[in-house]
Amino acid sequence: MTGLDAVHQYAMIPPGKLLRPLLVVHAALTVGGELSSVLPAAAGIEGVHVGSLMHDDIIDRDTQRRGRAAVHAAFGPAQAIVAGNALYFSWFAALAECAERGVPTDRIAHALEVQAGAGVTICRGAFDELAMRGGLDLSVDDYLAMARGKTAALLQAACRIGSILGGGDIPTTDLLGAFGDHLGIAFQIRDDLLPYDPATAGLAGKPADSDLRNHCPTLPVLLAHQRADPAGRAALRHTLLNEADPRTALRRMRALLDETGALEATHAMADHHAQLARDAISQLPATAHTHALALLTLPPSETTRPAPA
Amino acid sequence: MTGLDAVHQYAMIPPGKLLRPLLVVHAALTVGGELSSVLPAAAGIEGVHVGSLMHDDIIDRDTQRRGRAAVHAAFGPAQAIVAGNALYFSWFAALAECAERGVPTDRIAHALEVQAGAGVTICRGAFDELAMRGGLDLSVDDYLAMARGKTAALLQAACRIGSILGGGDIPTTDLLGAFGDHLGIAFQIRDDLLPYDPATAGLAGKPADSDLRNHCPTLPVLLAHQRADPAGRAALRHTLLNEADPRTALRRMRALLDETGALEATHAMADHHAQLARDAISQLPATAHTHALALLTLPPSETTRPAPA
Repeated sequence: MTGLDAVHQYAMIPPGKLLRPLLVVHAALTVGGELSSVLPAAAGIEGVHVGSLMHDDIIDRDTQRRGRAAVHAAFGPAQAIVAGNALYFSWFAALAECAERGVPTDRIAHALEVQAGAGVTICRGAFDELAMRGGLDLSVDDYLAMARGKTAALLQAACRIGSILGGGDIPTTDLLGAFGDHLGIAFQIRDDLLPYDPATAGLAGKPADSDLRNHCPTLPVLLAHQRADPAGRAALRHTLLNEADPRTALRRMRALLDETGALEATHAMADHHAQLARDAISQLPATAHTHALALLTLPPSETTRPAPA
Repeated sequence: MTGLDAVHQYAMIPPGKLLRPLLVVHAALTVGGELSSVLPAAAGIEGVHVGSLMHDDIIDRDTQRRGRAAVHAAFGPAQAIVAGNALYFSWFAALAECAERGVPTDRIAHALEVQAGAGVTICRGAFDELAMRGGLDLSVDDYLAMARGKTAALLQAACRIGSILGGGDIPTTDLLGAFGDHLGIAFQIRDDLLPYDPATAGLAGKPADSDLRNHCPTLPVLLAHQRADPAGRAALRHTLLNEADPRTALRRMRALLDETGALEATHAMADHHAQLARDAISQLPATAHTHALALLTLPPSETTRPAPA
């Protein structure tokens, strides 16, 4: 195995939840597509996700990922930049592989447009987010635009790509895309909440203090800032921007979010987008695959319960 | 203009020689393709080239590019990583744009395969090169493999993509691809030579001491090492790996390359690959576009002369 393959194996095995591949596959099967011909695209989108995490960890100076050394910490930052790039290109190589497996080229060209557009959107979002760091006066709309770039664009693309490659028509592809968009926003909001809930703090892929350390304006913090009185706002600003000890910052932020009711409001927004995702799916004929997609909208704490009958 | 667009404008305007776009366009017109439908691909490949330079400059800690601050020095390393990534995705968006301009989707799918494959090859080459740094016992074949990843893969892809999008058949696409491959190797070898020739030292995009500072084994250095006696090898190793002052290292290396005849041997290898490139082109029916491609193989010092009659 060459060096690059070793890095990719390190980063991708054992795998995470494989959410994005599941979306590609369930979307393709929802529209009657064939599993074997979309599998390369499903594997490819996990690669682009993992590649973006490699770069995120460099940018955020996070040295841990899923409880192990991040790729740049284990192999070096230059190696992590290049290995991430290789996964981006492999995402498109996967689409060529789908063509070889018999997906008609008009679908390939359409999926290519969605993939490339999502990639650019993600980069644009990541770039804008860097400029927003440290900002506490962002509106909920600013936040949603950021969450779309950071998370929802790729989840929406996964659903659209699965539908397109599987032969779905435009209205169906749009419904599956809307599902992915709202699911992505719900996921990003829940991701923002992970460090503040003792029951889920261990579920995050990155260190619990990463967002605070990088002064990332997450939804709970923005909502707390909106709801706080002037003294509370000052405390919040100090905790986000000036508290040197990350554990103290995390503890103080938890208290501030609790006092202002921001945690509850944030949970409600995540549930709202999860419901919008289910609403989109409910407009499609019910199958085992639309059911599987709907289950993905449930919060992590509920996914350990038995599936509804 | 948003922040990301400002970075892209900074990096791409004024443009460089636009070699890769010229290859796409001349290859497409060689096979009878239509200019307007391949222009997005021509612009897109310049983007991926510029994006890779942004990442290279981070990796090589080069703070100057074309006489100005490198992107990471002007905008920050995180911004340069993200802006480079956006250009990679835009390369594929350009292919979707060609489809919208009427290029049949079977050609798009074929060009997609070439683009994605070239992207992965480039990353694999860049990764392997990091491991080769500091090595002086590399063979010419090792060097050629490295030069293919670093430079020739993208030039070959430019020629192939132009031919495919323009409707070229497989033998023609292969000849144009072989042209791009040899042209790329000749270019990389000449690029290696730039710091050692007073007449061309100013033509390099990156600082003259970059390869030495990063312990990159370039062809003239490898050939000098092969030709040197034990004392010369020791001096060469010391100059590449241990000389702290880059100006002294550059001056000493120039002398060593001169003494061993390595400069002359390196020039000969560049000329050999330039000739192989012209040989490939000469098998195609002669047109203004094959003539233009052949002219691109001439060394920089000769391109200011009038074109051959």
